[in-house]
Amino acid sequence: MPRLNTVVARRAKKIRLLLLDVDGVLTDGSISLLSEGAGRAREIKTFNSLDGAGLRLMKLVGLRTGIITGRKSAAVTARGKELDMDFVVQDAFRKRPAFEKILRRARLKPEQVCFVGDDVTDLPVMARVGLAVAVANAHPEAKKRAHYVTRAAGGHGAVREVIDLILRAQGKYAAIVRRFLG
Amino acid sequence: MPRLNTVVARRAKKIRLLLLDVDGVLTDGSISLLSEGAGRAREIKTFNSLDGAGLRLMKLVGLRTGIITGRKSAAVTARGKELDMDFVVQDAFRKRPAFEKILRRARLKPEQVCFVGDDVTDLPVMARVGLAVAVANAHPEAKKRAHYVTRAAGGHGAVREVIDLILRAQGKYAAIVRRFLG
Amino acid sequence: MPRLNTVVARRAKKIRLLLLDVDGVLTDGSISLLSEGAGRAREIKTFNSLDGAGLRLMKLVGLRTGIITGRKSAAVTARGKELDMDFVVQDAFRKRPAFEKILRRARLKPEQVCFVGDDVTDLPVMARVGLAVAVANAHPEAKKRAHYVTRAAGGHGAVREVIDLILRAQGKYAAIVRRFLG
Amino acid sequence: MPRLNTVVARRAKKIRLLLLDVDGVLTDGSISLLSEGAGRAREIKTFNSLDGAGLRLMKLVGLRTGIITGRKSAAVTARGKELDMDFVVQDAFRKRPAFEKILRRARLKPEQVCFVGDDVTDLPVMARVGLAVAVANAHPEAKKRAHYVTRAAGGHGAVREVIDLILRAQGKYAAIVRRFLG
Repeated sequence: MPRLNTVVARRAKKIRLLLLDVDGVLTDGSISLLSEGAGRAREIKTFNSLDGAGLRLMKLVGLRTGIITGRKSAAVTARGKELDMDFVVQDAFRKRPAFEKILRRARLKPEQVCFVGDDVTDLPVMARVGLAVAVANAHPEAKKRAHYVTRAAGGHGAVREVIDLILRAQGKYAAIVRRFLG
Repeated sequence: MPRLNTVVARRAKKIRLLLLDVDGVLTDGSISLLSEGAGRAREIKTFNSLDGAGLRLMKLVGLRTGIITGRKSAAVTARGKELDMDFVVQDAFRKRPAFEKILRRARLKPEQVCFVGDDVTDLPVMARVGLAVAVANAHPEAKKRAHYVTRAAGGHGAVREVIDLILRAQGKYAAIVRRFLG
Repeated sequence: MPRLNTVVARRAKKIRLLLLDVDGVLTDGSISLLSEGAGRAREIKTFNSLDGAGLRLMKLVGLRTGIITGRKSAAVTARGKELDMDFVVQDAFRKRPAFEKILRRARLKPEQVCFVGDDVTDLPVMARVGLAVAVANAHPEAKKRAHYVTRAAGGHGAVREVIDLILRAQGKYAAIVRRFLG
Repeated sequence: MPRLNTVVARRAKKIRLLLLDVDGVLTDGSISLLSEGAGRAREIKTFNSLDGAGLRLMKLVGLRTGIITGRKSAAVTARGKELDMDFVVQDAFRKRPAFEKILRRARLKPEQVCFVGDDVTDLPVMARVGLAVAVANAHPEAKKRAHYVTRAAGGHGAVREVIDLILRAQGKYAAIVRRFLG
């Protein structure tokens, strides 16, 4: 667990919901467009399998997961469904109101939420939550305002790194490894 | 802001239009082709979300954006539309005439334009504009003739790096960050 | 051949079947989803040509190959067919029972199997086989329990590295190179 | 021009035809499969724009270009057409006979051909041509038998690096740059 200090661990201990930006966080920031006729295109999103397995582990130990993104694509809908995510909010031009709505529906306090972002549009939510994380490939302004900056880049295991951090801080990590070792 | 010196800053201060090559600049140079029947293929272009957010910020502060590319794909048309770009010129076998046309339509002088390129076909435009930028992954000849070479590679935030440089030189950067911090 | 010691070589010598996880092992862990209508998506898997050529070489010298993956996609089915793999088990929520079934069908002992994995879900199989390999990009818990950790990352030749290791340990490597040199 | 010595330059001077393997050379070795119904998949190939521009420059100065690949896809057919390549041989299970056929059709001697490969299947052709090149990401056996190993990886400008090397050795490089500078 890299650069995990007591302040981050204390914040991670209270987390009940992990909220994620999509582009640059659950992906490496790539926006792939497949050309169709008449100047239209279909979007391809590239997620990561370590992140996916981690998001399943979160659910397994009773924690919730969600997405807030400013874009919209069927790929994100499909991925959210596959990973049984609790909150999938797309097309959120402004992320702060979307966050407040999720907070009410989840009946949680801001300090019980971890948000992972990568750009200035994520700053309003990062300023509110208990644990604000920026990915390794984030814009400097996002990194500057994060409690924790991941070693892994978005789309390359950054989300799994945050999940391991939370599970470890909550003393749930070892049990998960044991469960698989049978 | 890496390697930003006063010469570059002085050039960046005058910019009113950011013109971009596509392959290698707005993308990492990948040309992905999805096989169809009869030896035909559909093109996939992979853009970057930090670049996209930056191009929106440009418009927000009243600066214009555009594309000059030698290839043609619906993916580029779609991306240009999504980011509300002012000039999208595709299929420009020779880039210099395409540039001169844009200059007239925009009613700008060459020193008010920044062009970002990556290969020898970009040299004629790079030789004309006020701020000529080459990406980290550019051909040596393009780097040799640029006023500024980005630290980030194309498709990995090179365009956002240029945008931050321009916004900072024009004293508009801090206001944008504050706007998001609300 | 990096970090090949006598313990690993001795284990590699007995291998008759190379079993592989897919995501993160035969791929770099990318899960690409092409957006379709109504929140559905089609999956794109990205394999590696060096791995593919290596898996053909395995068959050429009389060794068997297979896949155990927790996901399911037509891309994996197609790739397995193209490379003439002997066992392709998808949708294996739990990998250990899938492994035991393959073992019986192949009439092999666990020490005759090499398994390459990258995450905690692979631990039950890694604990059973004669040669347990983790890729360079594997989760720390998988690396900790591997007999060998590849230098190459999944999707970038990790599987070929394992194949070269096995062929070399079994004295079949030089003959293959000679065959191509004619 | 990295690691260019007089032996390589002397060999490069005679080249009239640049022959390329596809996977790992014109691409980074990625074999992307888009899932279709019934266990079928469509292939996506990812080429590089610097390579593409270089292959056009070759034609511009009167040199010929071609492909020999063991696989077959419409993406390669389409790319070959777009770049006006002279020889596109796919599905070549054995590359040596395919090479000899091209040699006859081109009416060239082996020393007038440069071949770029990345794996043991390329060795028979590499052993025949005047200039045998292996890419940075090639299998060790291919690198061992190459006259020149590129600094750039396949799919990331390796082919352009070889083209620049040939053009420079033949004294055609400076003229090309000047042509673009107008």
